[in-house]
Amino acid sequence: MKIAVLGGTGNIGVGLSMRLSIAGYDVIVGSRNKEKAKEKAREYETILKSMGYENEIEYADNRRASELCDVAILAIPCEHVFSTAESLKDVLEGKIVVSPAVPMKKEGKTFYYSPPPEGSAAEKIASILHNSQVASAFHTIPAKKFADMKAVFSWDVPVCGEKSAKEVVMEIVNSIDGLRALDAGPLSSSRLVESVTPLLINVAIRAGMRDLSIKFV
Amino acid sequence: MKIAVLGGTGNIGVGLSMRLSIAGYDVIVGSRNKEKAKEKAREYETILKSMGYENEIEYADNRRASELCDVAILAIPCEHVFSTAESLKDVLEGKIVVSPAVPMKKEGKTFYYSPPPEGSAAEKIASILHNSQVASAFHTIPAKKFADMKAVFSWDVPVCGEKSAKEVVMEIVNSIDGLRALDAGPLSSSRLVESVTPLLINVAIRAGMRDLSIKFV
Repeated sequence: MKIAVLGGTGNIGVGLSMRLSIAGYDVIVGSRNKEKAKEKAREYETILKSMGYENEIEYADNRRASELCDVAILAIPCEHVFSTAESLKDVLEGKIVVSPAVPMKKEGKTFYYSPPPEGSAAEKIASILHNSQVASAFHTIPAKKFADMKAVFSWDVPVCGEKSAKEVVMEIVNSIDGLRALDAGPLSSSRLVESVTPLLINVAIRAGMRDLSIKFV
Repeated sequence: MKIAVLGGTGNIGVGLSMRLSIAGYDVIVGSRNKEKAKEKAREYETILKSMGYENEIEYADNRRASELCDVAILAIPCEHVFSTAESLKDVLEGKIVVSPAVPMKKEGKTFYYSPPPEGSAAEKIASILHNSQVASAFHTIPAKKFADMKAVFSWDVPVCGEKSAKEVVMEIVNSIDGLRALDAGPLSSSRLVESVTPLLINVAIRAGMRDLSIKFV
């Protein structure tokens, strides 16, 4: 199965690209800029090589990556994710698309959840990509620790969406060491998962903790 | 310090009454019905006795319990919590009041967060009890397991509110074995914590798990 990590050059895309490659998926690093995608793909291969993996990581611009993939993960900063989805609508038709997007606003020292009128970022993306199968996952993964291939973690990943897409995405989540996928309901319950992220940030800031995620115990 | 557990005869009030007594607080079980409060207080004393504790647990109707306490926990079903707060407004003046309330609605098999126009149940309670110091905590505690005095758990409890009240409430939370209080920000961030509860329920239903709570890891 070919997974395009759109925005695979930054943030959560770094860890996803390398960890999904290790898990055995064909990974395509997507970026607005093909040269940047190439540079990062080579960098990921070098890191994987130092770990003993001879994996090849593909690269492409976001449009070409979307064409080539079976599943696309929108690892794109929230302020650009809707316009990117809009621009890739035709090439993402019929594909499974995963949204980790979390719309937030900051007031004083506190982050709040700031969902669009559709109810959640995931539902807005589904309304844009109405011919794709949209699921949501990876909202609560701390990007920096996830990108550190020496990091050890045990995190739960709530996944929302309709059954067929959700099953595929849960399998992808579970393929990554240290992650456990949990079925959190239909796509409309994404609002409950997206809003955990500002809570994690608020707690982390106040407790002086870093790289916080959640476990359901 | 005297803690009134209003609605201390049911749900989360059961575990709170016994566990706060063990932690060394003077506990008053409050109920609409004084006789019911008495009956439950005696029952809790019996359970504690079987565990080797000779603790006395006070009881009163909710109004008298509110008068007597330093801190009141509104362990009252969400559909009654606002009217109860309204009716106790005068006697809760100047006191610390803790809201574990979570307004939810169910659509199909999925629970959603259903906050009042104030933003969260906690903020609505604060708008009613404008002469009290309102904090929020205990939203994500699974009542049944918490009431089982043989249960072993390790759960995180986000606490929201203004500094002075929050510090007292965090100390109360931390006094209970197996709970860790985390500062989750001002009272307005209660919305982020309240909305975790329907997520926990949705995940628990679908995974066939019980008594789920959270840890920040």
